Amino acid sequence: MSKQNPQLDAQGNLKHFLTTEGLSRNLLTDILDQAEGFLGVAQQAVKKVPLCRGKVIANLFFETSTRTRTTFELAAKRLSADVLNLNISTSATAKGETLLDTLRNLEAMHVDMFVVRHATSGAAHFIAAHADPHVSVINAGDGRHAHPTQAMLDMFTIRRHKQDFSRLRVAIVGDIMHSRVARSQILALKTLGVPEVRVIAPSTLMPNGIEEAFGVHAYHDLREGVRDVDVIIMLRIQRERMNSSLLPSEHEYFRLFGLTEERLSTAQPDAIVMHPGPINRGVEMDSQVADGPRSVILEQVSNGIAVRMAVMSMCIGTQNLKSQPQGDVDG
Amino acid sequence: MSKQNPQLDAQGNLKHFLTTEGLSRNLLTDILDQAEGFLGVAQQAVKKVPLCRGKVIANLFFETSTRTRTTFELAAKRLSADVLNLNISTSATAKGETLLDTLRNLEAMHVDMFVVRHATSGAAHFIAAHADPHVSVINAGDGRHAHPTQAMLDMFTIRRHKQDFSRLRVAIVGDIMHSRVARSQILALKTLGVPEVRVIAPSTLMPNGIEEAFGVHAYHDLREGVRDVDVIIMLRIQRERMNSSLLPSEHEYFRLFGLTEERLSTAQPDAIVMHPGPINRGVEMDSQVADGPRSVILEQVSNGIAVRMAVMSMCIGTQNLKSQPQGDVDG
Amino acid sequence: MSKQNPQLDAQGNLKHFLTTEGLSRNLLTDILDQAEGFLGVAQQAVKKVPLCRGKVIANLFFETSTRTRTTFELAAKRLSADVLNLNISTSATAKGETLLDTLRNLEAMHVDMFVVRHATSGAAHFIAAHADPHVSVINAGDGRHAHPTQAMLDMFTIRRHKQDFSRLRVAIVGDIMHSRVARSQILALKTLGVPEVRVIAPSTLMPNGIEEAFGVHAYHDLREGVRDVDVIIMLRIQRERMNSSLLPSEHEYFRLFGLTEERLSTAQPDAIVMHPGPINRGVEMDSQVADGPRSVILEQVSNGIAVRMAVMSMCIGTQNLKSQPQGDVDG
Repeated sequence: MSKQNPQLDAQGNLKHFLTTEGLSRNLLTDILDQAEGFLGVAQQAVKKVPLCRGKVIANLFFETSTRTRTTFELAAKRLSADVLNLNISTSATAKGETLLDTLRNLEAMHVDMFVVRHATSGAAHFIAAHADPHVSVINAGDGRHAHPTQAMLDMFTIRRHKQDFSRLRVAIVGDIMHSRVARSQILALKTLGVPEVRVIAPSTLMPNGIEEAFGVHAYHDLREGVRDVDVIIMLRIQRERMNSSLLPSEHEYFRLFGLTEERLSTAQPDAIVMHPGPINRGVEMDSQVADGPRSVILEQVSNGIAVRMAVMSMCIGTQNLKSQPQGDVDG
Repeated sequence: MSKQNPQLDAQGNLKHFLTTEGLSRNLLTDILDQAEGFLGVAQQAVKKVPLCRGKVIANLFFETSTRTRTTFELAAKRLSADVLNLNISTSATAKGETLLDTLRNLEAMHVDMFVVRHATSGAAHFIAAHADPHVSVINAGDGRHAHPTQAMLDMFTIRRHKQDFSRLRVAIVGDIMHSRVARSQILALKTLGVPEVRVIAPSTLMPNGIEEAFGVHAYHDLREGVRDVDVIIMLRIQRERMNSSLLPSEHEYFRLFGLTEERLSTAQPDAIVMHPGPINRGVEMDSQVADGPRSVILEQVSNGIAVRMAVMSMCIGTQNLKSQPQGDVDG
Repeated sequence: MSKQNPQLDAQGNLKHFLTTEGLSRNLLTDILDQAEGFLGVAQQAVKKVPLCRGKVIANLFFETSTRTRTTFELAAKRLSADVLNLNISTSATAKGETLLDTLRNLEAMHVDMFVVRHATSGAAHFIAAHADPHVSVINAGDGRHAHPTQAMLDMFTIRRHKQDFSRLRVAIVGDIMHSRVARSQILALKTLGVPEVRVIAPSTLMPNGIEEAFGVHAYHDLREGVRDVDVIIMLRIQRERMNSSLLPSEHEYFRLFGLTEERLSTAQPDAIVMHPGPINRGVEMDSQVADGPRSVILEQVSNGIAVRMAVMSMCIGTQNLKSQPQGDVDG
């Protein structure tokens, strides 16, 4: 390859985590393996490891998201890092400072990592491209482009339940067109060797040419789409899109694409149901499914912290967990 | 007893702290004794003990209260816990997520304790009833129902000045009708054996039947009510209730129920004056009293941190202070 | 001296840091020397020293400033202190509590230091004058009066580049009239022995009698003012003052007082260019200068954390850095 992957350093180690695109199966598997090691931290009496002690991780959230910010904050604290929460929209940029000046200032304060959420696709790449070499950037969601830590926590959850990616049928259901989560999931599933990925959406929410572009199978009928699948990933519907020309009412959406016990019955008997949260109950699925035995939605939340700890410590260059004591060496 | 007290675990230890109601004199005394041990932490060079290191305590404030949140945050930090401040009103629930989904998510993140403030009476009980067994809930004020840590810091302050509860006359003055603080105080005072509790309020702010329901004496005249008492607890007047049908003007309220040096003179010569803060000077009392030699109002603030440390560490199951080193073992 | 300097304790050590006025050259030099010792902390793997462990530092920002608050927060965390961020305007004072009651309450919580920003000149002095003896106050900017940590980080940056203050010509350019930064800088430069301080401003933004009052030289022409200087300090223009009777348009301001490479050419060949940030590019200077080889603007940001660590640890009485191990003794 003539062009260096912008996410890797010269030695091929993860430096930034911007997208699941262009990363090797080995690297994605390494993230999953590292996360496995961090899963136990939440069970310890002292839920901390000292891997990132004295490092400063800044949450740069240009879009508000308490849930995502909280999981990154908890992951950072469990790694013993110091966390700065910066609400960018109401501060420096309000004074007319450019984004790059804000970055330069944070770098001058010796911040080690930026966790970025931004409404514009490509914002995290832009920041990584212009960041000082000592800084790592993690994409916590940029426009319609990517949300790679969400995708990797989903891969982690699938692997814990299904072990082997190479025999799975996975269906992703909902607003495929606008979903950065779906994009990142499809790319990760293909890289990890899932042979059959299906996307299920109303035609108004299905991108043209997605089958060729991503090697997936498109369905416009939920019942047909989930038949015999091992994993069903429901996407969150943005309520602001309802009652537009793209989407009918919530009631109508649920009637056609909402997951129920009855519709779930055509999937494999041990199929799992996933959702990135927060759930719109009665829109994407009914409560019987959300709280039922197939749902692994809350496991996804727990797994999300372990996966984010893995990605953060790998990018910050302290990922060699196996050689580090995991106990309360901080105290 | 056929029904388990919802605040206690199977061994009778404190699991949640929701109300002073239904707890034994032994347990309340245990809280006060534990708090005594934490009072010295604030005098140490390093104001920390490692009792809750690696635990995560989430402040769930559905009602804003910087003061109360700050004292809980400081108490948690002095116990070496990690603190998450979640402004719930502006985050998940704004996206249409139910309260229970928010709780389930925080539990999945392995949060150990919720400190809850909510405008609705019973909210903390509801959350405790639905919480995962590994989570403790502390009520930081719910509607008109209870504010038990405030009541216990008041008990602690009284005990430090008067030692023996069994000979005291205590007067509570103000909006008895709407006060969650008064309710929690009365229940704690009775449980701890105070023989004479008086409540003093305009008739519009005095609940019907309070004498029978709580075993207290009701007064509508401040001068008469504070005669010979050992402790005077002033309640905070909610200014938004002023100029309603319930309350006259601030000036008129002060004229009838405001505490002055002259009115205080009918109480015991060593009577103490308390207030949960923030004081409305010239409404509940004048500055001469607030800043005078009888006032223990600022001691209440200091004591509040010790009492909250006691309750938090007891609920989280690390309360065995005596067997733990208290010094700088964290460093 | 009959009157004790309000910033010093009985032994002449720094207790509060409110203004650069009235402090000796020795003391200012001591701050710079201490900061030199802290500069290396940002280069350590674990960017922390345990000097203020268990201390509580409260940011009392009555005026919002994410950038300044962040640098103080980072400085406090690198000293291992616990930080409380209090947005005062939206909390206690909104409930009608007086400023002094708010202070008394924080003192009762055993807060060790207040970092104060306030729109009113003299606010930090007022707070220091009324604070409990165990509390230190640092002025993070009060009205048009003073911003002493900004001035000291500027002195630190100058010393690192020019070593000897006693031969320098320093020019300060911009809204001299309203700038608390300029006031604090001029006083520090004079105390440290700079022989020639120039101030450059439109006549509407130049205080009457400044030459006599401060011993500086006033210029109304940028080109003339920067001739042969060693240091150029650009002030930030408050955009809200634009288009008023005091200031012409941004374009017109830049035409007359904006720094360009060409105008910079009359200064010493090794002159440095400073700015407190955030820069209004194309108003105070163009990007060629801001990002050019003379600019030390980002160094100022890095230096700011070291200087604030120095001032905080000196005020809190743990400044004896030399006798303390600097490494990871916290872990």
